Amino acid sequence: MIRAALDAMGADAGLEPTVLGAALLSLEPVEVTVVLVGDAAAIRALLARTPHDPKRLEIANAPEFVRMDEKPAAALDARPDASILCAARLVASREADVLVGAGNTGAVIHAAARSFSRLEGVRRVALCAVHPTLEPHGPKGDPFGLMLDVGATLQCSAEDLVAFARMGSCYSRLVSDIARPSVGLLSNGSEPTKGTDAIVAAHAALASSADLAFAGNVEGLDVPKGRVDVVVCEGFVGNIVLKMLEGVADAARDLARHAHATKLRYRLGLALLQSGLERVREVTDWKQYGGAPILGFDRAVIKAHGRSTPRAVRNALRLAAKTVERGLVPELQKSLAC
Amino acid sequence: MIRAALDAMGADAGLEPTVLGAALLSLEPVEVTVVLVGDAAAIRALLARTPHDPKRLEIANAPEFVRMDEKPAAALDARPDASILCAARLVASREADVLVGAGNTGAVIHAAARSFSRLEGVRRVALCAVHPTLEPHGPKGDPFGLMLDVGATLQCSAEDLVAFARMGSCYSRLVSDIARPSVGLLSNGSEPTKGTDAIVAAHAALASSADLAFAGNVEGLDVPKGRVDVVVCEGFVGNIVLKMLEGVADAARDLARHAHATKLRYRLGLALLQSGLERVREVTDWKQYGGAPILGFDRAVIKAHGRSTPRAVRNALRLAAKTVERGLVPELQKSLAC
Repeated sequence: MIRAALDAMGADAGLEPTVLGAALLSLEPVEVTVVLVGDAAAIRALLARTPHDPKRLEIANAPEFVRMDEKPAAALDARPDASILCAARLVASREADVLVGAGNTGAVIHAAARSFSRLEGVRRVALCAVHPTLEPHGPKGDPFGLMLDVGATLQCSAEDLVAFARMGSCYSRLVSDIARPSVGLLSNGSEPTKGTDAIVAAHAALASSADLAFAGNVEGLDVPKGRVDVVVCEGFVGNIVLKMLEGVADAARDLARHAHATKLRYRLGLALLQSGLERVREVTDWKQYGGAPILGFDRAVIKAHGRSTPRAVRNALRLAAKTVERGLVPELQKSLAC
Repeated sequence: MIRAALDAMGADAGLEPTVLGAALLSLEPVEVTVVLVGDAAAIRALLARTPHDPKRLEIANAPEFVRMDEKPAAALDARPDASILCAARLVASREADVLVGAGNTGAVIHAAARSFSRLEGVRRVALCAVHPTLEPHGPKGDPFGLMLDVGATLQCSAEDLVAFARMGSCYSRLVSDIARPSVGLLSNGSEPTKGTDAIVAAHAALASSADLAFAGNVEGLDVPKGRVDVVVCEGFVGNIVLKMLEGVADAARDLARHAHATKLRYRLGLALLQSGLERVREVTDWKQYGGAPILGFDRAVIKAHGRSTPRAVRNALRLAAKTVERGLVPELQKSLAC
C-alpha cells in the first residue's frame, strides 16, 4: 500500500478541496492510503459529513500552515511545525512515500529542500507544469506537454538545464508512457548558436548525449503547438510563459463573453458552438489536470494547483501514487547518471 | 519634406512589397519622399507598371543585399555595399531622415550599429514590437501594446532595462499620443523582490524615478491583457513571448478550422460568428501594423515585418515619417537625460 502525505492546509479554498479530494480517492480501487496533515479537529469535522473509507485515510495533526501570500522561508522559520513541514518530515522518515501539496508553491519547495536531499548531479530542483498543446503527445494522445522549470530556479546554469532535460524526459517516459520523449530547449531561435550563454552550452551538451531524444531549440511558437514532449527553460522564462498561456485562455473567454453581449447573430453562433467551446475550455483548464512534480529531490513531490477542486486533488493523489509505483526517484537517479 | 531611406531588398517576397508600398505612399498627401535603395533596374521595371508619383520617389542603386537566412555580421562584412548598409549611410550623412528596413532583422540592427552612434546613456539598443491586447491603450483606444526588447539585446543589465523603459515610454507618448504611458517590467511576480538580479535592481531604480508612470512588475498574464502600455524585458524573454503570441493566434485559427470540418452545428455557429472572427483575426494579425522602432541610435530606425504586404510597407513608411515629424531622436535624448 502506497502512502501519500497530503498537506491538507493552505490551498486557496482551505481544507475543503484537499479533504474531499482524499475522501473521493479513498472510495476508489487504488492502493493508496492518504495521510491528511493539518488541523485534525477540522479535518474530522469535514470527514464526518463526507462519504469516505476510514481505513484508507489517516490524520496527522498540524494546525499551523503557510498562507498563499506569505514569504515561504520566513513563514517556515516562524512555524517549524507548519503542515507542509510535518508532511515533508513524514516522507523524509519513510512513514509516507510521496509528498503532495496544494498550498503556497514556494513553501512546498522550501519544505522539501529542508527535509530531503537533492539527487546526485542536481544542483537546483525544477518545478514542472503541464500545459495544453495543439499536437497530442505519446501513445495515449495526451493533449498536454511538460515544461520545466517554471519558477523553482529563476536563473540556470547550462548544467542545471541539462539535468532538467534528463529529469523531464525520465518523468514523461514513466508517467505519460512515451518511450523516448522529445526534449527541446526554449530559445530565441532554432539554430544551436541562438540563446543565452547557458542555453548555447546546454544545447551542445544535450546534442552529444545519445540517451535523450533531443530535438534542439524550440521557439515561443512551439510551446502552444506542442512540437516537443518536454520543454526545458530557466524558471524565470518558464514562469512568464506559463502565466501567459493562462492569460490567453482567459482572454479568449473574455472575448467570447464580449461577443455574447453585442449581437444577436454572435449570440446564436456562440450558442451553436457551445459544446465545442466547452471542450476548448476543458482542455485549456489544465489546472484540473491534477498536479505536476518538483524534480531533483530524493523523494517524490507533487504540487497541485492552489485553486484545485476536490476532483483535481484526487487526480493529484492518483498521480502521486503513480510516481511511486513506477519508481520515479530511482529512475531519475539512473537517468542523471548517464 | 521628410526623406525616408527604404531598403527595398531582402523582404520575404523580394522587391515587390517594398516598391509597391512606396508607390502607394507617393500618391497620398503625406510630406515624404522615399529613397528606394536596391537594384535600380529592377525597381524601375516594377515602377513602370505601378501607379506612383515620380516626384516623391528616388532610387539609389545597390543590387547586393542580405538574405533572410544569412548571419548578419558575416553577410555585411562580405558585402559592404549591401542595400541595407547603403540605406543606413544615407541616413548617417543626413541625406535621409529615417531608415526603414523589411529584411533580415539582425542585418538592420548591425547596419544601424555600423553607421550610427548610440545615444548617451544607451549601452545596448532595443528592438520594439507591437502586440495585440485585450485592453485598449491611449486616447485613440489603440488595441496594441509596445514591448521591448524582443531580440536585439538577449541579456540585459539593470541599466539597460531602465534605458529601455525610458525610451519605450517616450516612443509610446510621441507615437500613440499617450500623455504618461504606463510602463511595466516583465517578471515572475508582482512584488518588487521578484525576478532576476537585473529585474530587481531595475525595479528599484524605476520606482524612484518620478518622470515615468512606472506600474511595477507585470506577469505573463498581463501581456495579452494589456495591463500596461509598455512592457520592458530582456531580448531573450521578449523574443520567446512575442513568438508565443504569434503561435497562439495560429493555434486559434487551426482550432477554428478543425471545428469547421467536424460538425454541421459547429459550421453553422462559425458562419454566424464569421465577421466577429474576422475582426479578431484583423486585430491579431499585427504584422500588418506597419512596423516598430529600433530605439537607442542617434537616428530613427523602423523595422517592418519581413512578410509585409505593400499596405504594411506603406504603413511603416507613414510611421517612419511620424517619428521624424515628432522629433523622436531629440525626445529620446531628453528622456534619457532625466
